[in-house]
Amino acid sequence: MRIARFSHNGVVSFGNVLGEGTDAQLAVLHGNPMLGLAEPTGEHIPLSVVQLLPPSEPSKIVCVGKNYGAHIAEMGLTGSVEPTIFLKPPSALIGAGEAIVLPHQSSQVELEVELAMVIGHVTRNVSEADALDTVWGYTVANDVTARDLQASDDQWMRSKGFDTFCPVGPWVETDWQPAQQRIWSEVDGEVRQDDLLGSMIFDARRIIAYISQNMTLLPGDIVLTGTPSGISGIRSGQVVECGVDGIGVLRNPVA
Amino acid sequence: MRIARFSHNGVVSFGNVLGEGTDAQLAVLHGNPMLGLAEPTGEHIPLSVVQLLPPSEPSKIVCVGKNYGAHIAEMGLTGSVEPTIFLKPPSALIGAGEAIVLPHQSSQVELEVELAMVIGHVTRNVSEADALDTVWGYTVANDVTARDLQASDDQWMRSKGFDTFCPVGPWVETDWQPAQQRIWSEVDGEVRQDDLLGSMIFDARRIIAYISQNMTLLPGDIVLTGTPSGISGIRSGQVVECGVDGIGVLRNPVA
Repeated sequence: MRIARFSHNGVVSFGNVLGEGTDAQLAVLHGNPMLGLAEPTGEHIPLSVVQLLPPSEPSKIVCVGKNYGAHIAEMGLTGSVEPTIFLKPPSALIGAGEAIVLPHQSSQVELEVELAMVIGHVTRNVSEADALDTVWGYTVANDVTARDLQASDDQWMRSKGFDTFCPVGPWVETDWQPAQQRIWSEVDGEVRQDDLLGSMIFDARRIIAYISQNMTLLPGDIVLTGTPSGISGIRSGQVVECGVDGIGVLRNPVA
Repeated sequence: MRIARFSHNGVVSFGNVLGEGTDAQLAVLHGNPMLGLAEPTGEHIPLSVVQLLPPSEPSKIVCVGKNYGAHIAEMGLTGSVEPTIFLKPPSALIGAGEAIVLPHQSSQVELEVELAMVIGHVTRNVSEADALDTVWGYTVANDVTARDLQASDDQWMRSKGFDTFCPVGPWVETDWQPAQQRIWSEVDGEVRQDDLLGSMIFDARRIIAYISQNMTLLPGDIVLTGTPSGISGIRSGQVVECGVDGIGVLRNPVA
């Protein structure tokens, strides 16, 4: 099921996404489906009239760097034996359709499409075999990065932590599992990144198991899984699309 | 005023701390004093019978590294023109009295006493002159760090992000401002760190102004301001004390 979190007439709700494209409707839910506590209200709203929100309000956003070989090469980095993890602040979150704002501190802001997972359970020391059972749903994220600041700062956090630097959405897909699906990004219709999820060095199971050995994941926490090669700059006035086949397309204008 | 957040008989409340030492009492509040919405209930509880909690539930914990010259030297690092900022996950938070748990991944866990600030207002692009107006209160933190993993990982986050690696407390002091007060740590009564807040390279005003230029701070967010020299290892069975004169002493056993 595709489940969106959205704001409509000032009320925040979840809804099941029915249909595709301009005909898509939201079957509004009462309660929080992430916690298994949601019932249909019977109300339907056109998807086109709501403001989509990030799929959860995470206590933390845990990201994996250097997870596609071609991206490690283009960054001039070397791979790691274990996943490289870092955090983005929840203040960076925006939903599909919201504008990415370029900070004056950077002259080189770049996109990074990533598969994202929304955690559904308290997760600590989970095995790889059981790791995907802790995922409520899968979605798409853009790990927006000020590349110049990433290079000049000691730590990656500031360059990846500006407000609006973490678009996530447009919804979660709960009946889906990562395999060889295509992951891609486009800017104004021009392909920038295009790879398969199977190119990930550390797969989704390994990432969740690894993070859960190092800290407790909570319901709503969002995990980003790294970006393929082809990262490149975005400018004011452009429209960025990030997609994972079988989930959906996350579209954000650049303010 | 000293204000503690605590759990007693399964209920989480705030309370004004009255008196010192073993005679200290909590004058229980109804509501959230951080938001200016709290009234005394009239109930008093001995401080000794409650479980102290971290002073807030932050959306993020923003930390400053390399902020005391002697610590930069002992780490073999070089200083930065601007503050080096990074995040600790809220899942690492514990209150005074709770045990620091040593993870099996590390054989070199160290303490780092730090002055911490709890933000009281939505804060974005604040000037240095106005920066301290955004602080609800001051407290003490221990930026517990797995030094071996900090050295071997690309990013600092994992080494500083294990569960229990962010003790904060014992309370906030709202009528206090940082100047030349002493900041210190002891392990089983032996002094490990001992410096003055005036030794900070970037002071509290500069830190908040800088962070707020790079991301929006929210009420409850906690800012750690860096540690003086003298960092050193902690072992199972020891008791760690971190103090800032005029605020209080944060005491945690090591499990």
